[in-house]
Amino acid sequence: MIKDTRHEHSFSYSQEDVVHFANVSGDKNPIHLNEEYAKTTPFKRKIMHGMLSASIFSKVLGTDFPGPGTIYLAQSLKFLKPMYVDTQYTCVLEVKSYREDKGIVVLETSVLNSDDNTATIVGEATVKIPVGVG
Amino acid sequence: MIKDTRHEHSFSYSQEDVVHFANVSGDKNPIHLNEEYAKTTPFKRKIMHGMLSASIFSKVLGTDFPGPGTIYLAQSLKFLKPMYVDTQYTCVLEVKSYREDKGIVVLETSVLNSDDNTATIVGEATVKIPVGVG
Repeated sequence: MIKDTRHEHSFSYSQEDVVHFANVSGDKNPIHLNEEYAKTTPFKRKIMHGMLSASIFSKVLGTDFPGPGTIYLAQSLKFLKPMYVDTQYTCVLEVKSYREDKGIVVLETSVLNSDDNTATIVGEATVKIPVGVG
Repeated sequence: MIKDTRHEHSFSYSQEDVVHFANVSGDKNPIHLNEEYAKTTPFKRKIMHGMLSASIFSKVLGTDFPGPGTIYLAQSLKFLKPMYVDTQYTCVLEVKSYREDKGIVVLETSVLNSDDNTATIVGEATVKIPVGVG
């Protein structure tokens, strides 16, 4: 799997997903949930939780690339632009280094708006993969 | 609120929370969900999603400290130790700098095992708070 060096995954979230994430995380910041409140913010409308959006990295790393058994060691995240529900985004993972003896993979991780390829999140992930998987 | 420089928040998650997070994020890595599979991993038992655990920062930042209206600009995360359900942890946020004119706050963010104060996650958050809140 780590023979590939780049992986793309298209996704979008619904407001129902945002409400589920608010419930499981406990982050009920009204900027994510309350349209009236959101109108008073710089974005003028509800935005998704950054951590919900960033969870796409967890999903892709843990299920697709590298895949099951992957253990998260580190993740950096810069939230460059607000993200919205019912909008198509592309998660892009690109392998920067792979230390085969330790199973340590460093990947550049980003989320792009699928319409115009503007980056909304950028960062880096470090993961450990089961020996023999790479 | 930003007059305080340190904020602690005690928390724990259940396996039900882990399943909810797996559903909302799509991260169904069996290391989080399947006891038999987890026995074959270095941890010998199921561990929580790093991103679920890290979502405590989102919760505290967005609801308590600084509180509603807070906008996430960046977060770095190092997952130092596996985290488990039904275990008491303490989330600690410590203000490192506050640029009042811009409303930009940088905080050291960590999660400690409440029993022995061992750090399980360390990192740094950068957030923007609504003008006049700090």
